[in-house]
Amino acid sequence: MSKLAIVVFSGYGHTLKIAEAAAADTDAVLVEIDANGDLDEDQWQQLNEAKGIIFAAPTYMGNVPWQFKKFADATSSIWAQRGWQNKVFGGFSNSSSMNGDKQVTLIWMQTLASQHGGIWVSLGLLPANTKEADRNDVNTLGGSAGALVQTPADASVNEIPRGDIETVKIYVARVSEIIDKLN
Amino acid sequence: MSKLAIVVFSGYGHTLKIAEAAAADTDAVLVEIDANGDLDEDQWQQLNEAKGIIFAAPTYMGNVPWQFKKFADATSSIWAQRGWQNKVFGGFSNSSSMNGDKQVTLIWMQTLASQHGGIWVSLGLLPANTKEADRNDVNTLGGSAGALVQTPADASVNEIPRGDIETVKIYVARVSEIIDKLN
Amino acid sequence: MSKLAIVVFSGYGHTLKIAEAAAADTDAVLVEIDANGDLDEDQWQQLNEAKGIIFAAPTYMGNVPWQFKKFADATSSIWAQRGWQNKVFGGFSNSSSMNGDKQVTLIWMQTLASQHGGIWVSLGLLPANTKEADRNDVNTLGGSAGALVQTPADASVNEIPRGDIETVKIYVARVSEIIDKLN
Amino acid sequence: MSKLAIVVFSGYGHTLKIAEAAAADTDAVLVEIDANGDLDEDQWQQLNEAKGIIFAAPTYMGNVPWQFKKFADATSSIWAQRGWQNKVFGGFSNSSSMNGDKQVTLIWMQTLASQHGGIWVSLGLLPANTKEADRNDVNTLGGSAGALVQTPADASVNEIPRGDIETVKIYVARVSEIIDKLN
Repeated sequence: MSKLAIVVFSGYGHTLKIAEAAAADTDAVLVEIDANGDLDEDQWQQLNEAKGIIFAAPTYMGNVPWQFKKFADATSSIWAQRGWQNKVFGGFSNSSSMNGDKQVTLIWMQTLASQHGGIWVSLGLLPANTKEADRNDVNTLGGSAGALVQTPADASVNEIPRGDIETVKIYVARVSEIIDKLN
Repeated sequence: MSKLAIVVFSGYGHTLKIAEAAAADTDAVLVEIDANGDLDEDQWQQLNEAKGIIFAAPTYMGNVPWQFKKFADATSSIWAQRGWQNKVFGGFSNSSSMNGDKQVTLIWMQTLASQHGGIWVSLGLLPANTKEADRNDVNTLGGSAGALVQTPADASVNEIPRGDIETVKIYVARVSEIIDKLN
Repeated sequence: MSKLAIVVFSGYGHTLKIAEAAAADTDAVLVEIDANGDLDEDQWQQLNEAKGIIFAAPTYMGNVPWQFKKFADATSSIWAQRGWQNKVFGGFSNSSSMNGDKQVTLIWMQTLASQHGGIWVSLGLLPANTKEADRNDVNTLGGSAGALVQTPADASVNEIPRGDIETVKIYVARVSEIIDKLN
Repeated sequence: MSKLAIVVFSGYGHTLKIAEAAAADTDAVLVEIDANGDLDEDQWQQLNEAKGIIFAAPTYMGNVPWQFKKFADATSSIWAQRGWQNKVFGGFSNSSSMNGDKQVTLIWMQTLASQHGGIWVSLGLLPANTKEADRNDVNTLGGSAGALVQTPADASVNEIPRGDIETVKIYVARVSEIIDKLN
């Protein structure tokens, strides 16, 4: 059993790659939603047993892909029974634009966490926002609620900006530390 | 061809009933998303030809049901070609709580409309917010971006508050008028 | 020194009254923003020393009153120095409508907490959303991110719905417990 | 009388400079909020007479500066009398980070417009989001609800990215066209 789970949907592999990099560093378990928006029973158990859950999804049309939303809809019975009350939550999202309405995704992820009675961990990093800042720096996108990633529309999974991957790794490690403090 | 389309997903019939009541008054066409989140070709054509589109969906777990999001995801090629640029948009949502995070749904609906280069019509009604206000009044829920409906968790489709249905009807008629002005 | 501070602005006394009721139960210190949006040095110290901060403000025109925003703007140097990193945060808002765009206020409060590197505590309560629910029940407004209060436009400070006051009290006690767990 | 007004607050001159550039192209009137958050009577009249209003402000601590919020609070009597009903609205925001929570500002601007019974015009531009995109391109920040501007923390008013200024100019011209269509 892992104390931290990253529940992830990835349409083209970018989000999955980032999640894998972050999970490796923190001993988090990856719970991957399938192309039909489903999890198997073992995966549900991994989420139920984890002390913390990180939502990981790209932003499509202003929010998570429908498969991730199908997963969220399937948590409604857990919600009714307060099954995830007091879990620690975080989230990150990738899109091909700098903003790309990723913040609407993050706001929804925070809302989902709140509905489950959760505790949300912010990114906790200042932005790199001077003229010298580049995409190898940590948090050049200037997120606060969670980690933001931007991969150009024509970039492969090997071309995700290094600074953004590092931002996610630092953030997932931070969520892991807060879980330790709370338990 | 109808100038106004209401694209609707309804899990238990409440949202559909409200949409039907509003459509009847304004000669809008109802475009109902099926249980698998799909539309047929005729339905896509109805949306493409309409001058305005109203998003209608309940709020589940802080946003539209996955079937409605699947519809939204399927509009990404229309988005890339600016197929809905300058269409008029509006939205309404029903949930079993007074708030129930319906505003997160509305914010996302506005975001989707913005991505498509749309023009968003607000509700345009003051709230009924005095001590005498009751659920037969128009806009007792105090929405502004779009119309809000609250149907208690144990209420049938025949028990939707009268004032909320009336609010949606007034709003859909308002969107229809704005379309006329713009075209 | 109190571990929990409630930083409050109240235009007509309703929000202050609720904050006082909640503070009394939890030994929280009230930090009241004045009519010009200012705090004195002792008040800043109370905030800096607290392990947790609850944002308390009515919703005017879709967000906190300008005085509360002036307070938030004045925290920018604390932000730059990470002075409130890892503090626990929560928030509540009152308005005269059921919704009244209070959720936009809550979203902003969460954003402010995130910018400061904070940890946000959700309400943690299911809604009272059946036909029998009334305004004496806890969380009849159906909030999730924080506590929501609705006081009709013509209601005095003695007519705030009992259930809403109780909701805030339960929430503030919950934030206090999470602080204990984290420290 | 100008059909379009840009109501602007600028802390360090960047937002004002952008607003001036956009106003010059469209014959819009600039209504500048003073350092105390106030407008004079002539300025209020300019806003009341305009067919459309664009909100222009930097993002400080997750939303507009308090001076802009003070202006918004002062519109509550106009709100109660539906004085701005059916006006056309838009908005843009500048901050020193790519994201910098500017979307929370935009969401609030949309909410304020909705409370006034307004019609919101989206940006209407696809993002420049390929590997070749740079800050001279239009909409490299990938906004949708309104125009986004990012000026590094150490950049003067003469160093605002050219593409962002161009984005605002195109957007303001677009809002002006929609006003013509509606009137």
